[in-house]
Amino acid sequence: MPAGLDSRTGLPVVAMVGGGQLARMTHQAAIALGQSLRVLAASPDESAGLVTADVLLGDHRDLADLHRLAAGATVVTFDHEHVPTEHLHALEAAGHRVAPGPDALVHAQDKLVLRRALQEAEEPQPAWAQVDSAADVERFGAVNGWPLVLKTPRGGYDGKGVFVVHDAGEAAALLDAHGTLLAEARVDMVRELSAQVARSPFGQVAVWPVVQTVQRDGVCAEVLAPAPDLPEALATAAQELAVRIADRLGVVGMLAVELFQTADGVLVNELAMRPHNSGHWTIEGARTSQFEQHLRAVLDYPLGSTAMTAPVAVMANVLGGAAAAPDWAGPPLDERVHHLMAHWPDVKLHWYGKGQRPGRKLGHVTALGNDLDEVRARATAAARYLADGVVDPAFAFGDEEH
Amino acid sequence: MPAGLDSRTGLPVVAMVGGGQLARMTHQAAIALGQSLRVLAASPDESAGLVTADVLLGDHRDLADLHRLAAGATVVTFDHEHVPTEHLHALEAAGHRVAPGPDALVHAQDKLVLRRALQEAEEPQPAWAQVDSAADVERFGAVNGWPLVLKTPRGGYDGKGVFVVHDAGEAAALLDAHGTLLAEARVDMVRELSAQVARSPFGQVAVWPVVQTVQRDGVCAEVLAPAPDLPEALATAAQELAVRIADRLGVVGMLAVELFQTADGVLVNELAMRPHNSGHWTIEGARTSQFEQHLRAVLDYPLGSTAMTAPVAVMANVLGGAAAAPDWAGPPLDERVHHLMAHWPDVKLHWYGKGQRPGRKLGHVTALGNDLDEVRARATAAARYLADGVVDPAFAFGDEEH
Repeated sequence: MPAGLDSRTGLPVVAMVGGGQLARMTHQAAIALGQSLRVLAASPDESAGLVTADVLLGDHRDLADLHRLAAGATVVTFDHEHVPTEHLHALEAAGHRVAPGPDALVHAQDKLVLRRALQEAEEPQPAWAQVDSAADVERFGAVNGWPLVLKTPRGGYDGKGVFVVHDAGEAAALLDAHGTLLAEARVDMVRELSAQVARSPFGQVAVWPVVQTVQRDGVCAEVLAPAPDLPEALATAAQELAVRIADRLGVVGMLAVELFQTADGVLVNELAMRPHNSGHWTIEGARTSQFEQHLRAVLDYPLGSTAMTAPVAVMANVLGGAAAAPDWAGPPLDERVHHLMAHWPDVKLHWYGKGQRPGRKLGHVTALGNDLDEVRARATAAARYLADGVVDPAFAFGDEEH
Repeated sequence: MPAGLDSRTGLPVVAMVGGGQLARMTHQAAIALGQSLRVLAASPDESAGLVTADVLLGDHRDLADLHRLAAGATVVTFDHEHVPTEHLHALEAAGHRVAPGPDALVHAQDKLVLRRALQEAEEPQPAWAQVDSAADVERFGAVNGWPLVLKTPRGGYDGKGVFVVHDAGEAAALLDAHGTLLAEARVDMVRELSAQVARSPFGQVAVWPVVQTVQRDGVCAEVLAPAPDLPEALATAAQELAVRIADRLGVVGMLAVELFQTADGVLVNELAMRPHNSGHWTIEGARTSQFEQHLRAVLDYPLGSTAMTAPVAVMANVLGGAAAAPDWAGPPLDERVHHLMAHWPDVKLHWYGKGQRPGRKLGHVTALGNDLDEVRARATAAARYLADGVVDPAFAFGDEEH
């Protein structure tokens, strides 16, 4: 048996750092390919830890734990971007394959590194500057206007680490708390888009249709695939931009390029080099899901077809809402799942098995169809019912309720 | 937390007896529903044991092992029909839910019990008799003609336990070896069909389109969905037959009714009360797969939409062939998977992770599309390449090979 293949099956072992829902859904894809995802989880109750056979408990910041994870695996990949770059270099130095590699991944870890790289590549992005002092921010604001946006270069996600500031005083407090920041001009945007591409070490790329992401409070709430009314030329330009970035940065695996659509075109917001919330719709909505494609890409398998399976797919996140609050007195989760299935027999549920807390991403639903408004109404009503126990009047429960 | 729900997730725990590929694919469906399938496997290397978090090693004929499996589970169900009926009654007596229950399941376990039940229900089936002696067989042959078919009432599958006999002497030898047998008249059939239905304890039923199953050497090789050129009236009659049987027998979960299509209509061959090879196409080809539907049904969740996702779906089994033989010198499995993906980027692979042996069901592939001939050629060529390493000339490998 060649190194890195499972002696029981003759097939590869992909090891994923992180035990969240992305690892959970990647395991589902791995099962079809004859594999079993190996997962480094922080606790056995993590989303992927509950459903995978090959779980190591450990810390993604601990090099010894990472070495345990990599031992005997074909390739190491990620469910999040929080592994220290030097650890990834150490894994590579020890002969392990890491995908994406640390020199690519850093662009998804550090927003300042990304901004510099995009500037060098002359790719479209918001006006930006590294700021170390209130005076730096003052200068940036004088040129680009107020309010402006300050971001922590590392560690932010789902709106965390992003601050809209109105004057140098606010900026000074943030600099005191966080150190060096990234300043960005506020973008007058039409909406947010995401362009997803997979790239293999061989250099093969596969792109899905560009989607619209609908954010609420800085968190993805819905994804509309394909992005409605997006001019074909702009869709193609966004896809080409994503492919250029994947190639230039040497990405291996999935890349999501989060974009601001403006009156003039698109600007790059940030990158994720892993399966991404904006691609969950691909499980049912595309011939090859982002999870299967990520496995194929990091293993240097040929990539799968990205054709859509229906004209329209809408994914709606279930964020912990009223029903996740400690004082919730409505139907418990299992009962809400019953109602969901009774009322939306063609909405597909993905529940992550995590503890319910307000604001937490607990699951998602996907609906497919021909008419965007109808599909979107169905998906969002189903998600809202799961999250809040609130029934959209358009889908009022009737006598057929069980 | 109500009894039978997982305290970590607030959702049910389905326990499945058997760790084969049906359990493996049911686990994939369970993950989406927020669950983790609990599996009773005979060895840790079984197909489902490789990928599930909650595996008990044990023997499905051992009541103590079955009690361990059932403890704390919401419901016990099956990946095969080999659990002794008295053990299932014992589980029920101890307060466990078993789905399908023993009084239903026995019709999938014992072909004589099934024949009697169908006769009582006046459902169409081949001429049959219980035979205990060569004289019984002689009498049956005199009325129904030779050759005739003898079957062991229990334990047969994939063509095992089925014998075509030409005279009373052959019959006598089989009766000596096996005891009481089922005699059936040979059916002058057009082809074999399968009608699948799911039924919940509440009594809700859901049916998929009737499919054609193509057998080779008594083993399912291909499934064509929907069955091509099946008159609508006959398709509806087959679906109604399946629903009647599910209701009459009190089936809970998936029921596959294997049918012979004759010049006059359909005759019932046998039943399976679990996900079935004839329904693997539903993973990609229907809005709700048989595996998700089985979970929904045994949990008394409302059932999902069975609408097809494409006009045509073809599933082709990968049976251990030349490439599974000990002297195989061609590309190993992982390399064949590479080639498969390169040449059929829209064929979906399901590999079961089992040891490769000639004749064994190792995996399957599914193709979707609009034109039966094209879809079928694609699926069967891909399956044949995996099994035998033989490239169909219509899909000759070219320069793009990687």
